[in-house]
Amino acid sequence: MGRAKRMERVVALTKILVDHPQHLFSFSYFCKKFEVAKSTLSEDVLAVKTGLELFGLGKVETLSGAAGGVRFIPGHKLEDDNEFLKELAVKLADPERILPGGMLYITDILCNPQLVVRLGEIFRSRLQHLAPDYVMTVETRGISLALLVARAFNVPLVMARHDNYVTEGPTVNINYVSGSAKEIRTMGLPKRMLQPGSKVLIVDDVMKAGGTGRGMVELATEVGAVVVGKAFLIETAEPATKMLEDYTAFFRLHSVDGENRKITIEPILG
Amino acid sequence: MGRAKRMERVVALTKILVDHPQHLFSFSYFCKKFEVAKSTLSEDVLAVKTGLELFGLGKVETLSGAAGGVRFIPGHKLEDDNEFLKELAVKLADPERILPGGMLYITDILCNPQLVVRLGEIFRSRLQHLAPDYVMTVETRGISLALLVARAFNVPLVMARHDNYVTEGPTVNINYVSGSAKEIRTMGLPKRMLQPGSKVLIVDDVMKAGGTGRGMVELATEVGAVVVGKAFLIETAEPATKMLEDYTAFFRLHSVDGENRKITIEPILG
Repeated sequence: MGRAKRMERVVALTKILVDHPQHLFSFSYFCKKFEVAKSTLSEDVLAVKTGLELFGLGKVETLSGAAGGVRFIPGHKLEDDNEFLKELAVKLADPERILPGGMLYITDILCNPQLVVRLGEIFRSRLQHLAPDYVMTVETRGISLALLVARAFNVPLVMARHDNYVTEGPTVNINYVSGSAKEIRTMGLPKRMLQPGSKVLIVDDVMKAGGTGRGMVELATEVGAVVVGKAFLIETAEPATKMLEDYTAFFRLHSVDGENRKITIEPILG
Repeated sequence: MGRAKRMERVVALTKILVDHPQHLFSFSYFCKKFEVAKSTLSEDVLAVKTGLELFGLGKVETLSGAAGGVRFIPGHKLEDDNEFLKELAVKLADPERILPGGMLYITDILCNPQLVVRLGEIFRSRLQHLAPDYVMTVETRGISLALLVARAFNVPLVMARHDNYVTEGPTVNINYVSGSAKEIRTMGLPKRMLQPGSKVLIVDDVMKAGGTGRGMVELATEVGAVVVGKAFLIETAEPATKMLEDYTAFFRLHSVDGENRKITIEPILG
């Protein structure tokens, strides 16, 4: 293949950077790939940076020195993120979502890849200062969201489970009180998944009383990790007293009124 | 904001297209966003297409007419995909993955966002002729993979579960025989997740005897969907007789020899 033109290189560079959020590529990786000198690559990188930032589509960071390189930091304009959350709040308030017992059906949202990709980036934008080494969740429904939060941070996902599985190897288990159901449940984590001393961000879809979230905090602590944050897509207004403190939520669910078929939910804007 | 230069538009266009695999954007969406005429946009689109295809980073399709527009088709060069599968096979053969009972620990692979994004694209490349409306899996371990296969196809994920949950609404349930454990288990799907008559691609991480896969086929059929394909990351060589036919696998696990600490696994190249 002949040497590519600048426009072609810039397209390829954009694609590769965007596909690997937060991953630090060495300059020599791209110099070799595109068969260009570092000075030419620097101009290409600047073009990507300028284009992305002009349209509020994320940032490009360059680090100089021997350990240097270039990386893409996902994120959108704050007003675009807020607009996205407002639109999602409208979807979440659709009375068709009302389930018996005042529950809200949100599985379709969590199974929509485009929506969870964007939510993952919004979680990261609001929580970037936490710089976690892992994102942790507990099966099942929050897995898709947690995975894409992990992707936006470029860290592995760690998945706690309610049963012991032969496919997980040795696990550390704890018992916890599921806040809403007031049941004692068990939660376990494969020992090999989490390095002791690492920083963990806990992510789940819904927090009611916070019992499950608290269980995850205890489990992470039990394996020697440090919980740097807890983030939930939706928190419920009731019960007002939570078993967790210092968490982040993106929506507050005030009420699900089955009789009048009305859901009251507000986005918590950044 | 003043009108952007071509290079800046092309960067933004690349980013937006790549972020929404298979999503058809109307030309007018981009004409409005970039404040350019359609002829100018056409040249921008051509630049993105040329750059991506030159480096084997996916395709750009344009459809003309009133329902027309532009979309990004994810995918890599076949030799790059094969190289990726070969490298992953080496990782999978690490003796540290051996668990008691000849099981293989793969949760870390399935919890690595970068790897599953790429695997999702490889699944799509090999199965694009199936054109599913939904990707379906069963909790828990295959969810991350299935979600990113769904993302590559730009369709929703449908998640069967082993228990009934108050958060899912009415479900359709079936009993099935877990092939390896010879247990009778239950699997259910929220009725509202899947439209009758829709085309479903079943995805899971590992297929041994195929009992769980067969359960998913029965469940999908029970809700009136049409199963167009079954795809598994890994199939085991044993048992040789499977409860499923006509499936696609990307790795074949021949043996896990705990005594000699040796795993034999081969990638199934495209």
